[in-house]
Amino acid sequence: MPTIALLTDFGPRDWFVASMKGVIQGINPNTAIIDITHEIPQGDVQSAAFCLLSCFRSFPKGTVFIVVVDPGVGSRRKAIVAKAEDYFFIAPDNGVISFILDQHRESVKAYLIEKEKYFRKPVSNTFHGRDIFAPVGAHISKGTSASHMGPKLAEWISLPWPPLEISKDTIAGSIIYVDHFGNSFTNISAQVLRKFNLDSTYVFINGKEAIPFCTSYNAAPEGTPLAIVNSADYVEIAVNNGSAAQNLNLSIGTPVVLKNI
Amino acid sequence: MPTIALLTDFGPRDWFVASMKGVIQGINPNTAIIDITHEIPQGDVQSAAFCLLSCFRSFPKGTVFIVVVDPGVGSRRKAIVAKAEDYFFIAPDNGVISFILDQHRESVKAYLIEKEKYFRKPVSNTFHGRDIFAPVGAHISKGTSASHMGPKLAEWISLPWPPLEISKDTIAGSIIYVDHFGNSFTNISAQVLRKFNLDSTYVFINGKEAIPFCTSYNAAPEGTPLAIVNSADYVEIAVNNGSAAQNLNLSIGTPVVLKNI
Amino acid sequence: MPTIALLTDFGPRDWFVASMKGVIQGINPNTAIIDITHEIPQGDVQSAAFCLLSCFRSFPKGTVFIVVVDPGVGSRRKAIVAKAEDYFFIAPDNGVISFILDQHRESVKAYLIEKEKYFRKPVSNTFHGRDIFAPVGAHISKGTSASHMGPKLAEWISLPWPPLEISKDTIAGSIIYVDHFGNSFTNISAQVLRKFNLDSTYVFINGKEAIPFCTSYNAAPEGTPLAIVNSADYVEIAVNNGSAAQNLNLSIGTPVVLKNI
Repeated sequence: MPTIALLTDFGPRDWFVASMKGVIQGINPNTAIIDITHEIPQGDVQSAAFCLLSCFRSFPKGTVFIVVVDPGVGSRRKAIVAKAEDYFFIAPDNGVISFILDQHRESVKAYLIEKEKYFRKPVSNTFHGRDIFAPVGAHISKGTSASHMGPKLAEWISLPWPPLEISKDTIAGSIIYVDHFGNSFTNISAQVLRKFNLDSTYVFINGKEAIPFCTSYNAAPEGTPLAIVNSADYVEIAVNNGSAAQNLNLSIGTPVVLKNI
Repeated sequence: MPTIALLTDFGPRDWFVASMKGVIQGINPNTAIIDITHEIPQGDVQSAAFCLLSCFRSFPKGTVFIVVVDPGVGSRRKAIVAKAEDYFFIAPDNGVISFILDQHRESVKAYLIEKEKYFRKPVSNTFHGRDIFAPVGAHISKGTSASHMGPKLAEWISLPWPPLEISKDTIAGSIIYVDHFGNSFTNISAQVLRKFNLDSTYVFINGKEAIPFCTSYNAAPEGTPLAIVNSADYVEIAVNNGSAAQNLNLSIGTPVVLKNI
Repeated sequence: MPTIALLTDFGPRDWFVASMKGVIQGINPNTAIIDITHEIPQGDVQSAAFCLLSCFRSFPKGTVFIVVVDPGVGSRRKAIVAKAEDYFFIAPDNGVISFILDQHRESVKAYLIEKEKYFRKPVSNTFHGRDIFAPVGAHISKGTSASHMGPKLAEWISLPWPPLEISKDTIAGSIIYVDHFGNSFTNISAQVLRKFNLDSTYVFINGKEAIPFCTSYNAAPEGTPLAIVNSADYVEIAVNNGSAAQNLNLSIGTPVVLKNI
């Protein structure tokens, strides 16, 4: 049974996600449909991009990801289907899948979505999730080649990765995501961190708060902040049994400095 | 694999929806269970009815809809199973499925739900979703005829459609639903609108705010209101990258007038 | 198709639940994954335990429950897999499944989870839901014996049931759970209640408010409180078409006294 995973900003209150699932069921009833989340803040393409980046490798190869955070719906923005790492990604071409595609510039196969034959008719101007992305995803999950959806795309819109400044003894980055628990993800990957000697590295927020690295939340005293390489393989600021976002006043964009001292 | 779709006001916090799904799995493990939403405001039968109306045709024929917005649970209100447009609807008889049934008065097949043989035992007085609606829906999804559930019903409780006043140059209606984005659905369908010449038609809220029709959200300048025929085929008031409900102070019942000028 | 049911405090906003489901799909694609809820208050082991207790018997025998409310993740707390009543329970050993296990001390088969062969690698220190509990659950759902996961456990951590004082004419207990509607569950089971004569029994909150027992919400006048044996088989305080929690200022721990008068 192939897997289709959905990521949108449609929220849990209305029928929009259900309409997409209904369309998928009508085309491929033998699929497992999994929600990533539908609570991306309205139109927040970067949060959606980071969310997808952080979880897609937990899914089996062949999974079809349908991502609809689409403030430009009905405008002339393109729609894209791409294959990378043996996964399929279907989305508006607004950068929402670019954190993944940009890691594989040479090997990615990307196509414009324009073959109306695979759309639900009539196509509305306000709900391409239901009328274009869901049916295209369902057809891909049945084995239709991505190349049938339209001409090859050599380029796509890329989101910039929030800037990192790396010197011998410091890495200056920023908060890129805050989760449900208040755990705050930085844009500093474990790979970048590996160049450092963790034993003497601390995290500074606003120049103060020398926060130590720990290997589990419980290694810090309750209520105190810690830095940790988290399950998405990024440096995260957390508070043992508390909210780092709240305690340290962190939000997306807050500068974070790692320093060897 | 048959599809069962669930619509309730049970909210996401408790185990009530899961109990229904567990019961369905026990009776028909080979079914795709899809959530429409469980965040209908408590006991708001009209919002649930409009929500169902707006999405049921996205599902494949044969889908079984189980709708439990049921402020009268445990009272003497009836329970109903109906077949319309080759879909099945299972609900308390309080009007929640009547927007659909009333479109097909001649062809609908409706039955009272009363055969205890299809219920989970013992039947509680507070949770017919788990004890009656879920098991009946699961049996229907396995092919049991709706007519086995009880005697034929010639009548059911109908919700009134919020009133429309249509004259040569105006349609006076109202807001019937506000979605997650603040997009505000009127009770004026595309079918009614077709009698008008859209090129000179504007929407008035409280007598002012001459809002133009657009064919996409992006066709209006950012932050300004527009009217659009939406994906559910109703006239909707929206704001490009904003909330019409908030900007124009719209809520269910707010009067809306379309005028040719 | 075997059923896997998930219960966590991960919330609906992030990708954590989806990562677990992706891992499960990769190991056993032919499974029905059902969410109980992911909105348990952060780290609230007792609410999760009561939630699981209240719904597990609605699921078919053989269902695998994966429960991740795990404030001690990454510490030396144990992980446990247990079989009781022909269901499987997988969780941190912090009491979250103990309301069920403790009912079957003699017959429960419990094992430590420690065979890394069944884990996702590398195992992170912050997300055992994805790296340990999900893959172990998926393997169990495919028929791997629980006994393969590690050595037998004769003991586990038990949550105390909130205390009950029972005398000839009174039962003194407390509120144990408040649901989405404000209905407030007491820790007094129908079994305990059966020793009483309901016809003359009333519930007292803070010594006043003689609340009568009813057999349905509608049997009380609208807006007034009632006591009822609910669908989970506990005494519940409710308000017909209102919120008992709000009207009577109830929360977890509020003392409740049943008295024959």
